[in-house]
Amino acid sequence: MRELRETILRQGQCVGDSIVKVDMFLNHRLDTRLMFAMGRELADYFGKDKPDIVLTVEASGIALALAAAHFLDDIPVVFAKKSPAANQSADMLTAVAHSFTHGNDNALRVDRRYLPAGSRVLVVDDFLADGEASRALISIVEQAGCTLVGVGIAVEKGFQPGGRKLREAGVNLKSLAIVTSIQDGRIQLADDD
Amino acid sequence: MRELRETILRQGQCVGDSIVKVDMFLNHRLDTRLMFAMGRELADYFGKDKPDIVLTVEASGIALALAAAHFLDDIPVVFAKKSPAANQSADMLTAVAHSFTHGNDNALRVDRRYLPAGSRVLVVDDFLADGEASRALISIVEQAGCTLVGVGIAVEKGFQPGGRKLREAGVNLKSLAIVTSIQDGRIQLADDD
Repeated sequence: MRELRETILRQGQCVGDSIVKVDMFLNHRLDTRLMFAMGRELADYFGKDKPDIVLTVEASGIALALAAAHFLDDIPVVFAKKSPAANQSADMLTAVAHSFTHGNDNALRVDRRYLPAGSRVLVVDDFLADGEASRALISIVEQAGCTLVGVGIAVEKGFQPGGRKLREAGVNLKSLAIVTSIQDGRIQLADDD
Repeated sequence: MRELRETILRQGQCVGDSIVKVDMFLNHRLDTRLMFAMGRELADYFGKDKPDIVLTVEASGIALALAAAHFLDDIPVVFAKKSPAANQSADMLTAVAHSFTHGNDNALRVDRRYLPAGSRVLVVDDFLADGEASRALISIVEQAGCTLVGVGIAVEKGFQPGGRKLREAGVNLKSLAIVTSIQDGRIQLADDD
C-alpha cells in the first residue's frame, strides 16, 4: 500500500538492525486518516470472504481493527485482553503469546460469548514479526469453533519468520507493507503485489 | 445519548452494586456502529472548540477516541501507555492513575513529541468513575504545555466522584450516558441534557 510505505519511509525510525519504530503514526500516536485508509484496504481485500467479526489484541491493534470493521459494514470488533481484570467472566478462551518487545509471555483472553461458534473471523493486528500474537489469536478462533477468514496486518517484518509461517500454514495473509531489511539505519520495503 | 442509554439497559450487566459491565459493546467486544455514533456525538459537541489532538489511554479508550477523531476532520489520536516498553524513548510525560478495577497503580506515559506545546487537546475515555485516568491525562496535557478543550466520556458512573470533581474544576465534561445508581441489579440512568 503506497501511502503506508511512504509514511514508513518518512516517519519510521530504526533502533539497531531489527526494530522499526512506527510510534509516530501506528502505535502511540495514530494517523487517523492513514488508519482509515488502511482499514478500507483490508476491507476491500477480505470483504469477498464475508467476515462477521474482526478479532485483534489490545492495545495497538484496536484502531486498525475498528477502521477495517467500519468498512466491512460495521461488523463488531473483539479485542483479546492481555491481563485478567477483577471483573472478568470465568469462561475465557486463552492462548499464550511471547512478546519479544517486552520480553515476557502474555496470556491472551477472549470471552467465549463474543466469538459465537460458526462465526467467520478476520484477525487484524498492527505488526507481524515472529507471529506470536497472530498464532495465539488463530488458536482462540479455533477453540471457539469459528472459521478463520484471514489475517490482515499493517506492517510485516519480512526478515522475521511470522509471515512465512502463516503463509506455509495456508493462512490468507495480507500485509499492507513488508519491511524486508534494515541496513545502516535505512528501512527497505518490498514492492506492492 | 439515547442509543447508548438503550444499549446499556439492554446489554449492560451489574456486578454487585457498583460495577457496570459493558463488555458486550464498549470494552471487550466493540459495537462498531454505536462506537461511530458516539464518536460523532462527541465531535459535534466539541468541534466548535477546535481540538487538534485527541488524547486517550490504552486500551479501551482507543476505539472511541479514533471514532471521535474521524469526525473531527481526522485529527490524530495519541494514546497514553500503561507500561514501559523496551523500545520507548526517554522523554516521556508521566502521571500516575490508580485503577480500582485492577487494584493497582498505572504510570500513564506519553511521548512528549506527540503533544506539541500549544496544541488543543480533547481527552476521551470509555469510562469515568473515580476520575483517576482523566485526572492523569489532564496532568499530562498541562505538563506538555497544551490547552485542554474538554473531556468526552462514553459512560460516567454518577455515583462515584470523578465527574463531580472534574466539573467543579471547571472542566468541560461531556458524558454520553450517566449511570446514577445500581439497585437490586438494575441500572438507573440519568436523562439526557
